[in-house]
Amino acid sequence: MNYCSQCGAAVHQRIPEGDNRPRYVCLQCDTIHYQNPRIIAGCLPFYQDKVLLCKRAIEPGYGLWTLPAGFMENGETTREGAMRETLEEACAEVELKSLYTITSITPINQVQMFYLAELSQPQFAAGEETLEAQLFSEHEIPWDQIAFRTVINALRFYFSDRKHQTFPLRHVDLTGK
Amino acid sequence: MNYCSQCGAAVHQRIPEGDNRPRYVCLQCDTIHYQNPRIIAGCLPFYQDKVLLCKRAIEPGYGLWTLPAGFMENGETTREGAMRETLEEACAEVELKSLYTITSITPINQVQMFYLAELSQPQFAAGEETLEAQLFSEHEIPWDQIAFRTVINALRFYFSDRKHQTFPLRHVDLTGK
Repeated sequence: MNYCSQCGAAVHQRIPEGDNRPRYVCLQCDTIHYQNPRIIAGCLPFYQDKVLLCKRAIEPGYGLWTLPAGFMENGETTREGAMRETLEEACAEVELKSLYTITSITPINQVQMFYLAELSQPQFAAGEETLEAQLFSEHEIPWDQIAFRTVINALRFYFSDRKHQTFPLRHVDLTGK
Repeated sequence: MNYCSQCGAAVHQRIPEGDNRPRYVCLQCDTIHYQNPRIIAGCLPFYQDKVLLCKRAIEPGYGLWTLPAGFMENGETTREGAMRETLEEACAEVELKSLYTITSITPINQVQMFYLAELSQPQFAAGEETLEAQLFSEHEIPWDQIAFRTVINALRFYFSDRKHQTFPLRHVDLTGK
C-alpha cells in the first residue's frame, strides 16, 4: 500500500494512538487502513460414496484438483459463499450439511471454511475457472495432484469420519512454523 | 474508495473480465481492489457458573456490555485473535475450549466467531477499551444493556446448552432481511 484510497495522499506506516501495531495511515485525511485476513468459503460435495473435485483452470495450482471454494464476498453469508462457489466452479447445486473444516493459514492471512454438502443428483460441469469436474471414490482420489493442503486435509478427515458417519468440526491452524 | 492504493490514480467501478460483480479497478496500473468481509474473533469466558462481560469504553455501544472480541489481525489464527482480544479487553488469560458461535452479518460484512473459554482463576481487569470487567451469573446478566445481538445470542445459547453440558457449534446468519 502506497497511497490513501480515500484522498490519494501517500500513506505512512505508524502505530496509531491507542493501537499496538503498525498500520498504513494517511497523515492528510487521518484514515487508518486496516488489513485483515480474508475468508475462503467452499464445499466438500458428496454424492453417494463419491466426492466432487474440480481441476483448476487458473493459478495457483493450474491443472491440479481442488474442492470448489473461493473468496467470500461482501453481502453474503459464509454458507451463501460456499454454495455460490460450488455453483460457479462445478455448476453444481448442493444441500449444505454442516460446517466441516475451519483452517487459519497465517502465512497467507486466510481462514478457509469447507461445508459438507450433498449433491441430490450427479449433475455438475466445469465452470469458468475449472478444466474438468469429476466424482471420485476414495480409492480414486489423485492424492499427489491435489492443489492445496486444506483440501487434502478435508478429504482425509472426510474418508476417516465417514466410517463412523459422524463429522465433527475439524479446526486446524496452519502457521508455517 | 476513490484512489488506487498502489499507484495513486483515481479508481473506477467496473466488472473485471472473467468476474461477475463490480470492483474498484485502477485503469492506470490494472490493480483490482477486492473488498471482503472481516472476521471478529472473541471469547465467551466462563468461571464456574459465571461468564465474564466487559463494559465498553468505545463506540459503538459505549457503556454497554459485551464479550471480549475484535477484528482478527493478519498473521494470527482465529484462536490467537480470540485469546488476544480477551487479554486486551479483559486482561484475562483463558483456556480455549471449542468454537461455539459463528455468525455472518451481511449488512456490515462481518463474520463473528466466539470460542467457549475457561478462566482458571477469577483474574481479570478492564483493558484500554473497557470501562469495567465483571463476572455475571445467569440471573445477573444485564440483558437490556448488551451491546450486540451476537453477544445476546451467544449468552442465550450458553445458558441453555449449559443445562445439558453439550455445546454444539451454533451457526447463525443475520442478513437484515
